[in-house]
Amino acid sequence: MIDTRSTLSDPKALRAEIRAGRFDGPTAGQGGDALQANLVILPQADAQDFLRFCQANPRPCPLLAVGEPGNPALPTLGDIDLRHDVPRYRLWRDGTLVAEPTDIADLWRDDMVSFALGCSFSFEDALTRAGIPVRHQLAGRNVPMYRTNLPTRAAGMFSGPVVVSMRPMPAADAIEAVAICQRFPLAHGAPVHLGDPSQIGIADIDRPDYGDAPDIRPGDIPVFWACGVTPQAAIDAARPALAITHAPGHMLVTDIPSGQAERCLTGVHPG
Amino acid sequence: MIDTRSTLSDPKALRAEIRAGRFDGPTAGQGGDALQANLVILPQADAQDFLRFCQANPRPCPLLAVGEPGNPALPTLGDIDLRHDVPRYRLWRDGTLVAEPTDIADLWRDDMVSFALGCSFSFEDALTRAGIPVRHQLAGRNVPMYRTNLPTRAAGMFSGPVVVSMRPMPAADAIEAVAICQRFPLAHGAPVHLGDPSQIGIADIDRPDYGDAPDIRPGDIPVFWACGVTPQAAIDAARPALAITHAPGHMLVTDIPSGQAERCLTGVHPG
Repeated sequence: MIDTRSTLSDPKALRAEIRAGRFDGPTAGQGGDALQANLVILPQADAQDFLRFCQANPRPCPLLAVGEPGNPALPTLGDIDLRHDVPRYRLWRDGTLVAEPTDIADLWRDDMVSFALGCSFSFEDALTRAGIPVRHQLAGRNVPMYRTNLPTRAAGMFSGPVVVSMRPMPAADAIEAVAICQRFPLAHGAPVHLGDPSQIGIADIDRPDYGDAPDIRPGDIPVFWACGVTPQAAIDAARPALAITHAPGHMLVTDIPSGQAERCLTGVHPG
Repeated sequence: MIDTRSTLSDPKALRAEIRAGRFDGPTAGQGGDALQANLVILPQADAQDFLRFCQANPRPCPLLAVGEPGNPALPTLGDIDLRHDVPRYRLWRDGTLVAEPTDIADLWRDDMVSFALGCSFSFEDALTRAGIPVRHQLAGRNVPMYRTNLPTRAAGMFSGPVVVSMRPMPAADAIEAVAICQRFPLAHGAPVHLGDPSQIGIADIDRPDYGDAPDIRPGDIPVFWACGVTPQAAIDAARPALAITHAPGHMLVTDIPSGQAERCLTGVHPG
């Protein structure tokens, strides 16, 4: 019954609608140019390990902000209340998905620590602006993602392989994409591999482990980026007693312009 | 009889030795960290076209400095007298190599225009410092170079294919190399291609058109940069009545630190 079809280009107005329970849809195309983030919330006991895991694996797990224990605000990203401000959450108990609520006020505890992680939206926009075709977007598909034989650096209970997303493109575009994406360290940065998929343990490029099959054109080479599914997979494997994440595609929308993600770290951001 | 074996780490002292006729060897490893340059000297009538050719093809022909007609100085690069300061020159008449003098004072004319063009030394140093193997250097060979089917943009009498140099390396190093080399626009910048050589018209990677055969290791991919042989090839084909260049490997050594090539353009450089 909730209208999720209209577009709100102002991130503050969008979050107000989400907070009021009037918007619970996917956030792609919403909030104008504002940076969107993956969300992970863990009790403090497990959050310590997860923070170390992110610090040790910045390509798949670029940390935009970490909340104070028990505090649902992320002030460097905007006037955010994480109990209400994500359109749809996922609740995990012992590694099992048990609910997809639109509000977690009743689940919030005073030992909860929240993590906002960068996502690929920023660099895909930059690629498109540079005239590089983002084939899964043009085909109306989800990006293909693969488990690799590249290991993350383990931290306590969290470990596992790097998961990568793949975007096929001509070699000259791949070179330009590297040059562009290294400017977005908080959106997974430069690719981690390109060319032969078997070199990183991918047996069949046409059968991704997550997302949709790729649209590979003649002359394309596959280009692989570290992917935000990596921390999700590490959490799945670690099976913490309690974890809350955003539901796929239902991201945390911040006040930071997407081209200025480093403002998350410097604290200089538009009021 | 001239001692070319000693190493002079100060570019001014090195040029003084060259100017005095006491050094006529290759400049690799000489002049410390100073930027080295390709040299082209043409009569003004042809120089006009060549200047436009370089401007239109900055990847293969990165212009560091252009001399005033008739003036053998390049003041933005150092206290240089091009009649004496290159250890060995090549003299071309109607496109044919006719001499390899160590001094061109007797050939200098008041309509001569000189061009200093960036070379690959700067970025190869940066790759090595980044831990990326530069295989032809490690093997003691010359870099392999290939004519491609990529066209330059023609300017007057100057045209022809882009010539590329190739450095094989693992894919992860290739990604890092792109990120590094795009910071060196005056040393050919980012690669122009990687992966399948046939996509740019190279039939047999093991048989380069110039330089030595490549040392390609298992897991390497070929990475291709626009090469300073491109303008040489364009001059060869155009067959100007008169041209003077450096002899291969016998470069113009400037006073600019190799990591600061942009100082050539801004004019801010150490006295």
